[in-house]
Amino acid sequence: MLDNIVSEILSSSKRAVARGITLVENESPSSSQLLKSLFKNTGRAHIIGITGPPGAGKSTVTNVLTKLLRKNNFKVGIIAVDPSSPFTGGALLGDRIRMQEIGTDADVFIRSMATRGSLGGLSRKAREACEILDASGKDFIIIETVGVGQSELDIAQTADTTIVVLVPESGDAVQTMKAGLMEIGDIFVINKSDREGADALSVALKTMLHLKMKETDDWDVKVVKTVGLQNKGIDELYKEIERHKTYLEKNGKLHEKRKENLIKQINELVNNKLENKFWTSERKKELEKNLEDIINRQSNPYDFVEELFKVESL
Amino acid sequence: MLDNIVSEILSSSKRAVARGITLVENESPSSSQLLKSLFKNTGRAHIIGITGPPGAGKSTVTNVLTKLLRKNNFKVGIIAVDPSSPFTGGALLGDRIRMQEIGTDADVFIRSMATRGSLGGLSRKAREACEILDASGKDFIIIETVGVGQSELDIAQTADTTIVVLVPESGDAVQTMKAGLMEIGDIFVINKSDREGADALSVALKTMLHLKMKETDDWDVKVVKTVGLQNKGIDELYKEIERHKTYLEKNGKLHEKRKENLIKQINELVNNKLENKFWTSERKKELEKNLEDIINRQSNPYDFVEELFKVESL
Repeated sequence: MLDNIVSEILSSSKRAVARGITLVENESPSSSQLLKSLFKNTGRAHIIGITGPPGAGKSTVTNVLTKLLRKNNFKVGIIAVDPSSPFTGGALLGDRIRMQEIGTDADVFIRSMATRGSLGGLSRKAREACEILDASGKDFIIIETVGVGQSELDIAQTADTTIVVLVPESGDAVQTMKAGLMEIGDIFVINKSDREGADALSVALKTMLHLKMKETDDWDVKVVKTVGLQNKGIDELYKEIERHKTYLEKNGKLHEKRKENLIKQINELVNNKLENKFWTSERKKELEKNLEDIINRQSNPYDFVEELFKVESL
Repeated sequence: MLDNIVSEILSSSKRAVARGITLVENESPSSSQLLKSLFKNTGRAHIIGITGPPGAGKSTVTNVLTKLLRKNNFKVGIIAVDPSSPFTGGALLGDRIRMQEIGTDADVFIRSMATRGSLGGLSRKAREACEILDASGKDFIIIETVGVGQSELDIAQTADTTIVVLVPESGDAVQTMKAGLMEIGDIFVINKSDREGADALSVALKTMLHLKMKETDDWDVKVVKTVGLQNKGIDELYKEIERHKTYLEKNGKLHEKRKENLIKQINELVNNKLENKFWTSERKKELEKNLEDIINRQSNPYDFVEELFKVESL
């Protein structure tokens, strides 16, 4: 059965890709076998991370960018990482409706992944979903993350090209800097740039990027102004993506970046395995037994963990 | 020497607290001994998490709230979790200046922690810093997190009372929901509420909170309007904090919450220890040796990790 999914994913079956990602999302035992089989067919897609504060119009930018990529005959995969919500259980209806237009295209695959569950878990799953899309022959994979926190930044950073989407209203440039966005953007987009404040934000961003460039690398970060809903500035954004892609490929930077990501991935796999091995039923019982004592300060978590390691050899 | 720090922290020495937190931040070997010795004196402070999107005025709210807590003769510790920035190496100067006024108070301790380094690392260090402040006799500890991502939410959630600070401009209520903030707030603050849109946001928030309440618990989340810079609404905010504190204590909910946090803490300690044990120099060498092969798709990370576990027994 797994062989079937593998060959179907390799021949771009939307259904098989969806099933594969579901296996990954549910941490099904067969998912690791699947990823193992697909791995040699990965590494070809260019991965674009799109991040920025809530309300900046990341979904809209994703949407119009996808249309443009399709016009250029590229196959596109989209992973939207949404915080879970008890109201919706994941992506909001509005986003889904906006996405429907491109979603019916046979060469566009869209998937929302919710953040319910653990952090590390999510970035791992998003990466694994990318591998499946990559193996299925997508030319570009867009990972859209909602929010501007560390984990979302981490996810965006595993991309080859990271786009930070801002709006004139999303706070001044200093706030962007504080949110840690200045450091990760390969391209900055000021969306809804027909609104007041776009030029001021653009100037401030450019100044700060200029300051930053001196101390880091030789990639010249550009600020692109767009109006997503009117399809404005998207050509320029696409050109910047291509320019960054070429830059990465020419300088061996892509290799460097992917090496770093691989190390992270291996670390995650190791940690996951270690954790699963460690928490035997004996250790879980010990935890149950000792919690109250620790809460009542008759013991402490540091000594307890040392005891826990002595419970039995791994 | 460690005995000295322990007794000085217990007698509220600012200098000793600062040194203790530095030990924790640097992951110094003696930090675990320090935390072990302090643990029995913890669990008394009430921990307040303050979070929300960048620019909402969290620092200002922290500032005026601290002044009010001081007026009521409470001792206050503040941990500000800031994303790292190559420009500043941590907290921005502006925040530091704003904080100076309360920082000179002998019974207020302020510390910025940058997010450089690993994610998990940060939430662990923030929690450990809390333990030190707690042991030093602070009545309230405020953890302020910048950003609205998963890890920041995680940090805010380890608090006893989580305050979500919004501004009329920070996006509509739906955006708040998307950012995962609806689920974690015990109290909502609309800061800068003299600006346009405050009432609309308040109504929308209340409606959504009402919907949410039905399916969860019996705590009645309130929306408080403040103007931090004018000290408006802070009395009401303080009353809400006290009301929530009483609620938690009366219902055994505080115990429940702290139990959950303790389990998380133990998990983190275990993972940290497992990781350190696993990455022997032999395994690191193996990693070095195999990276290129994996990148070139002659091998895959999944098989490699399995091999890595066979390198030697733990």
